[in-house]
Amino acid sequence: MTEVDLNSDMGEGFGPWTIGDGVDAAIMPLISSANIATGFHAGDPSSMRRTVEMAAEHGVAIGAHPGFRDLVGFGRRHIAAPAIELVNDMLYQLGALREFARLQGLSLQHVKPHGALYMHLARDEVAARLFVETLQRLEPELLLYCMPGSATWRIGRELGQPLVREFYADRDYDRSGSIVFTRRVAALDPQQVADKVLRACREGKVRTVEGEDLDIAFDSVCIHSDTPGALELVASTRARLEGAGIRIKAPR
Amino acid sequence: MTEVDLNSDMGEGFGPWTIGDGVDAAIMPLISSANIATGFHAGDPSSMRRTVEMAAEHGVAIGAHPGFRDLVGFGRRHIAAPAIELVNDMLYQLGALREFARLQGLSLQHVKPHGALYMHLARDEVAARLFVETLQRLEPELLLYCMPGSATWRIGRELGQPLVREFYADRDYDRSGSIVFTRRVAALDPQQVADKVLRACREGKVRTVEGEDLDIAFDSVCIHSDTPGALELVASTRARLEGAGIRIKAPR
Amino acid sequence: MTEVDLNSDMGEGFGPWTIGDGVDAAIMPLISSANIATGFHAGDPSSMRRTVEMAAEHGVAIGAHPGFRDLVGFGRRHIAAPAIELVNDMLYQLGALREFARLQGLSLQHVKPHGALYMHLARDEVAARLFVETLQRLEPELLLYCMPGSATWRIGRELGQPLVREFYADRDYDRSGSIVFTRRVAALDPQQVADKVLRACREGKVRTVEGEDLDIAFDSVCIHSDTPGALELVASTRARLEGAGIRIKAPR
Amino acid sequence: MTEVDLNSDMGEGFGPWTIGDGVDAAIMPLISSANIATGFHAGDPSSMRRTVEMAAEHGVAIGAHPGFRDLVGFGRRHIAAPAIELVNDMLYQLGALREFARLQGLSLQHVKPHGALYMHLARDEVAARLFVETLQRLEPELLLYCMPGSATWRIGRELGQPLVREFYADRDYDRSGSIVFTRRVAALDPQQVADKVLRACREGKVRTVEGEDLDIAFDSVCIHSDTPGALELVASTRARLEGAGIRIKAPR
Repeated sequence: MTEVDLNSDMGEGFGPWTIGDGVDAAIMPLISSANIATGFHAGDPSSMRRTVEMAAEHGVAIGAHPGFRDLVGFGRRHIAAPAIELVNDMLYQLGALREFARLQGLSLQHVKPHGALYMHLARDEVAARLFVETLQRLEPELLLYCMPGSATWRIGRELGQPLVREFYADRDYDRSGSIVFTRRVAALDPQQVADKVLRACREGKVRTVEGEDLDIAFDSVCIHSDTPGALELVASTRARLEGAGIRIKAPR
Repeated sequence: MTEVDLNSDMGEGFGPWTIGDGVDAAIMPLISSANIATGFHAGDPSSMRRTVEMAAEHGVAIGAHPGFRDLVGFGRRHIAAPAIELVNDMLYQLGALREFARLQGLSLQHVKPHGALYMHLARDEVAARLFVETLQRLEPELLLYCMPGSATWRIGRELGQPLVREFYADRDYDRSGSIVFTRRVAALDPQQVADKVLRACREGKVRTVEGEDLDIAFDSVCIHSDTPGALELVASTRARLEGAGIRIKAPR
Repeated sequence: MTEVDLNSDMGEGFGPWTIGDGVDAAIMPLISSANIATGFHAGDPSSMRRTVEMAAEHGVAIGAHPGFRDLVGFGRRHIAAPAIELVNDMLYQLGALREFARLQGLSLQHVKPHGALYMHLARDEVAARLFVETLQRLEPELLLYCMPGSATWRIGRELGQPLVREFYADRDYDRSGSIVFTRRVAALDPQQVADKVLRACREGKVRTVEGEDLDIAFDSVCIHSDTPGALELVASTRARLEGAGIRIKAPR
Repeated sequence: MTEVDLNSDMGEGFGPWTIGDGVDAAIMPLISSANIATGFHAGDPSSMRRTVEMAAEHGVAIGAHPGFRDLVGFGRRHIAAPAIELVNDMLYQLGALREFARLQGLSLQHVKPHGALYMHLARDEVAARLFVETLQRLEPELLLYCMPGSATWRIGRELGQPLVREFYADRDYDRSGSIVFTRRVAALDPQQVADKVLRACREGKVRTVEGEDLDIAFDSVCIHSDTPGALELVASTRARLEGAGIRIKAPR
């Protein structure tokens, strides 16, 4: 691997509030793709505009990061809704972000659903299919970020939507290749995370929670901006990759 | 006048609720331009999609109808916000609707702010200017519906945004040319409304609440879909105009 | 049975919108207990106040009808949330309604969760237990409306919270005693519904969708105010019961 | 003055977000009265419960801090609404908080409207009168926090609602006795703020922005928890007052 994408969620405040350490401005110059919150789980019109402008300033590619309509739950709670409703919710959010991109003369590079919606589309064939079919009709060139092996990924491949497979630098994997969600107490060590990402890029392997090596293939490294110490994780990962001759570069 | 636009607000329900008599489906075939609620004062993603599809089916031109972020107040309560916030709110809503239009292969014909936001832009030079400047940058061909004599109208003319001047069939005028807002008890008489509109089209005059004639110039007749008996008002007005050889036709 | 409660959901509009036929004012005098929407799935502070006042005027007992925080989905979509969050959401809504009752010098008679939250508590032992334990601590005399056989009902009995078992006049039962949810096309026949309720009161039996008789025991008949033709269902049911010497009366 | 109340806004996060430095837990032990956000401008049911519990733990008196329904604007934007709607909104929020207090076996000490709603009631006779009349009917002993000289204060005195007059430690006064709102760049100096409060307590005087002394009378010192460096301001003020023999004590 001589280059890889580095993506992070940006603009996940709302009104008076910022998320995590409030370090979007420091993270933005270090990443290549920004997933911008579009108002349903976080993000308001003014934050979306500012975030698009900030991405433009640093040459970072932008994508929509639509979530469930659930501010209080930050889009992390599953809402049982028909696929058509969820797709309409995503279209709404996608268009809202696209308008701010348009104002800057930019195009959207990608879409990446957020939180519980990302997980829902990873598991639910019906919702994933309707979403990908809709993208095919709407914008067959729009990149779709996804988890390798997920329903989104399978159906995206089947229907020909261009995909960006993610590797989660700040999450653990188990031997099935699934992400292990834990309520962490301790912060992650930036050097360990950087090592883990570098190894994944070079060898295509990650150590699972069971202590075995798992083969992985990916196009983009994801570091969540609301992970405690996110800035350090992004900075150390970028430095490590660049030091090893791997360029941080948006897929498009 | 051999042709005139007839516009009405569409899709102003939310979730389980519909507005007024819930007669969008009956009104749609009778109008030429639909102002579609975009989620902040009314309208949800699924209603927006259905309304765009319904407009497409009847060849009705579509426009965004953005409002203040105020569902409970239906966008009829003024919210004191900086112009930039309001413009960003409108961009967000405009883009959301545009995405549903895009899915149908349609373009937006126009934008018409809703309720208290419409009135705010009619009066506030700063907000109106920032909005029109933003439209100039975003889409200098997008039609802007407005009240003749308002700040929106003046600044639209000054900066060159194409304007559609409205005549309000279901509101009274006073001698200053302002709309008189009353909490009506009685329903309007469809034949009287039709007569009023026909006279306005033919003679360019309307009788004010003071009993005098006022000169008016306009490109579009507006009938609010939540006025009680809206369907009858729209139907009788359309029939009267067509009977007099005036065609109902979207400006673009 | 010489008397029975008749309950209905009231105040399920929001801001400019009313639900169903908008016939709360006509239904209110016919029922004995009103479940008042408390703002999360429907209902706003002003509608809550008006509904409490209307109930007071007709001597109808009032209860809180808290739902999931989901206006657009009308509280009919399950939201995966920890039990403690749901209980806190219900406390919030319960208190909000209690304040309007207090202003009228009234007490709350009961609480009845709405829609998907009602179903969730009927099935989820953990959430039902935490809710009932919290009621025990908060107000051990508050009546809890529930479905016989549900988790709410079992735990309510175990912990001693006073229960009101419901019979759903406008829903079908299957042989397991469960409610059959169908998207009805045809409106219900008011006389058939009245017959069904009278038989349930007199014989403790209801005909299931499989065509068999099911034994049922209940304290309250529920007719949903957003069922099409709700007013006729309530009116015919009340008339039939009263004609048979069964008095409509709130449990407390 | 041998004792004075020290009040601060608490629980002004929402869902995943905390306000300012997120230091409620550190401020709470230092104040005597907590104004708890009640969900319309900030605060959610779970944060309200946690904040009430935290106040109970430290023996801090609690009050409701209702705001305009405006999360994105944090209740700092005026919304033009009829007085009755605003009063109903406040009742709703008041009751919601009261329920969490009830769960802890506590009573509410006070109510203090937030932000633009506080300012609206300070200026609008009609809204202030309806609010105070409603409090008289609801709970004539509930303390009402207010700005001396405001409409709230005048009408509260007239109708006999018990009042707590505030002195704003982190705001500047002008010679008319009004608060000067500035978008501060520099953080406030904790020692200067402490000096200012001590002088106000001892001499009843504050230096205005014009450089003159203004007579002031008050019962409570307010320090906003979202002022940058709020914790230091509260800590230094409390230490200075206690060092001078003035006890920090809730009015009731």
